[in-house]
Amino acid sequence: MALIVKKFGGSSVATPEKIMAVARRVLQEKKPDDKIVVVVSAMGDTTDDLISLAKAVTNQTQGREMDMLLATGEQISIALLAMAFTKLGQEAISMTGFQAGITTNEFYNKAKITGIAPDRVLKELDAGKIVVIAGFQGLTETGDITTLGRGGSDTTAVAVAAGLKADHCEIYTDVDGIYSSDPRVVPTAKRMKEITHNEMLEMARLGAGVMHPRSVELGKHYGMPIHVRSTFSNESGTFIREEYTMEEKEFVIRGVTHDTNVAKIAVLGVPDRPGIAYKIFSALAEANIDVDMIVQSVRAIDKHIIDMLFTIAQGDVPPARTILEKLKEEMSFIGLTIDENVAKVSVVGAGMLGNPGIAAATFGALADANINIEVISTSEISISCLIDATKVEQAVNAIHSRFFPG
Amino acid sequence: MALIVKKFGGSSVATPEKIMAVARRVLQEKKPDDKIVVVVSAMGDTTDDLISLAKAVTNQTQGREMDMLLATGEQISIALLAMAFTKLGQEAISMTGFQAGITTNEFYNKAKITGIAPDRVLKELDAGKIVVIAGFQGLTETGDITTLGRGGSDTTAVAVAAGLKADHCEIYTDVDGIYSSDPRVVPTAKRMKEITHNEMLEMARLGAGVMHPRSVELGKHYGMPIHVRSTFSNESGTFIREEYTMEEKEFVIRGVTHDTNVAKIAVLGVPDRPGIAYKIFSALAEANIDVDMIVQSVRAIDKHIIDMLFTIAQGDVPPARTILEKLKEEMSFIGLTIDENVAKVSVVGAGMLGNPGIAAATFGALADANINIEVISTSEISISCLIDATKVEQAVNAIHSRFFPG
Repeated sequence: MALIVKKFGGSSVATPEKIMAVARRVLQEKKPDDKIVVVVSAMGDTTDDLISLAKAVTNQTQGREMDMLLATGEQISIALLAMAFTKLGQEAISMTGFQAGITTNEFYNKAKITGIAPDRVLKELDAGKIVVIAGFQGLTETGDITTLGRGGSDTTAVAVAAGLKADHCEIYTDVDGIYSSDPRVVPTAKRMKEITHNEMLEMARLGAGVMHPRSVELGKHYGMPIHVRSTFSNESGTFIREEYTMEEKEFVIRGVTHDTNVAKIAVLGVPDRPGIAYKIFSALAEANIDVDMIVQSVRAIDKHIIDMLFTIAQGDVPPARTILEKLKEEMSFIGLTIDENVAKVSVVGAGMLGNPGIAAATFGALADANINIEVISTSEISISCLIDATKVEQAVNAIHSRFFPG
Repeated sequence: MALIVKKFGGSSVATPEKIMAVARRVLQEKKPDDKIVVVVSAMGDTTDDLISLAKAVTNQTQGREMDMLLATGEQISIALLAMAFTKLGQEAISMTGFQAGITTNEFYNKAKITGIAPDRVLKELDAGKIVVIAGFQGLTETGDITTLGRGGSDTTAVAVAAGLKADHCEIYTDVDGIYSSDPRVVPTAKRMKEITHNEMLEMARLGAGVMHPRSVELGKHYGMPIHVRSTFSNESGTFIREEYTMEEKEFVIRGVTHDTNVAKIAVLGVPDRPGIAYKIFSALAEANIDVDMIVQSVRAIDKHIIDMLFTIAQGDVPPARTILEKLKEEMSFIGLTIDENVAKVSVVGAGMLGNPGIAAATFGALADANINIEVISTSEISISCLIDATKVEQAVNAIHSRFFPG
């Protein structure tokens, strides 16, 4: 007997026919004693349609009422999928976020899960039912409906798996696993059988699109194995685990990622006083803007003046611009430039700890390809370089072929 | 200051533009200190669209999952209406059935409200917000989403008004009040300023379509005044109250109604034993089939044989047929006929108590129009006649002009 949480995204349940196909697929793989929870997203374009409805009423498409609206999308899919199971002779019950005991904080549109009360779900599983849970949503302690924002349904799946102490969580997607680089960019990219949560987290954070970092982080925290696999094939995909179980241990580098959703911000000529970085970055944090790749440099000529350089997501550029223009007056810095024509390429692998040659090899690959590096940042298991956005494909291939020759 | 619950149906909120119009209308009428709750149905065809989705998955479109699906319709409208209020500068908050504290029993698809916990709604009203509540839905004590079935949103409005001890409940509809008969059938029908709950209940039960009997019954139970008025005009409509406040007291008859959704069932030649009626009607009741106009007659020749005649709604004919065919064998009755070509015309008025001339006048009006009466049934405040369905317009006009001359 196994308890497995399976998650299917919006494109897998886009039509009634596809919903029936998901139900059939789940039943095909289910062993008689298995306890199965299925987490689903909203059908196909439902979320976009709901957003259009809201936009026809108001330009204020944020906050509590938006979550009230969007949460209906998943509620429709769970009801239909439960009907599909019943139609196929399998008892099933659908549950909204609140019925599945998913509590969140009150950050509407991007709430975080604060707890899972699994009693009702376990009771229904014990009664022999497949439990179909709405992804992407939860309820605050005050009883308000929230949605989880980007990567929400994957996060629901992993959180529910952790709350139920499931054997593992399966994420069904349109690719058949995690690759050493994006196969659309690097034709020689290899599929991995296994990867650690830490490495996957770093790859997701640095641009690997298959998994959202939130769900991987949750999987890491609870030691929950996550199996990333294809909706369209029965083959095994990639297992994300705490530790390798196999020969893949010997790999130093696991992947090369890239991210073109990057803007470089330069705050130039700031008078050097204590608390300057705090002032800039706390103002951005208050607006919920994530900052990455921070470099601070003291000017060689005037040591009381510093330059600050960092990256943010392109979608955050408009609010960041407003905040920084305001700070520019307040803090009297000299210049502010924002450049969206940049991209980040990264090398990820737990094996780079104690392998100082990795950084050199990465920079060497870029140099050989005649690509200039604007900013470098490193973590324990990754190295990232900011480069000209037009050269990103060339850069990823150059680095990938250096670490995965042949 | 007044606390008013206003209910708008699906056609009033069918598009984002109409939702804005409802919000504007509510704000136009709102006095600064008024506390306003708005109950809404699903937008236009949303419920039908959801039913089509379900039918594309299964032919089993009943039960818990259907309510899970359908409840999303009202959740979409409340979110959009709350956004519309906010857009117009009025603080507002939407609430699903469960958030508004509406508990129901577990009869999915036609649940009954068992309680209203008004705390959260009152808190939000005290904070100056308009509270927008999803009609037609509630939550069972086990935490499952239910819908209320026919007349559900009106019932939600009246129940919430009672739970909040509102001053009155306003039902906005596409007609401007309650008429002495259906104006589409009787051109001389008159709009009433007032009617009692009892009379309205009887009229609704007997075919007056504007209000569903459930909501009127609830209004009667809690003594809640209900103002039925037009969505498209600012004029007053009809007030449904416990007692008349005005000169309308003097009316003996309040209305003439008709109902063509009737089937006449004759169970013929049943051996007369104790418990026969119980057996037939309990079997129908178990299938939730309402029975009306029951006439039992003993055969003149063989006193041990009786005929039983009654009416049901036409939609209940298929299950009733199955049940009765089965009973026919069990109880060995001789014949079973089902006739859908009948209609019921009724005269309603609290004044008919102690006015024996009313029945005679009704029968006389039909006789003068050469219309045969198949079955008669009476209550304290109504007289109903079952007639040939093709003569219903003629019958209603004949009776109406007898009681409302000129």
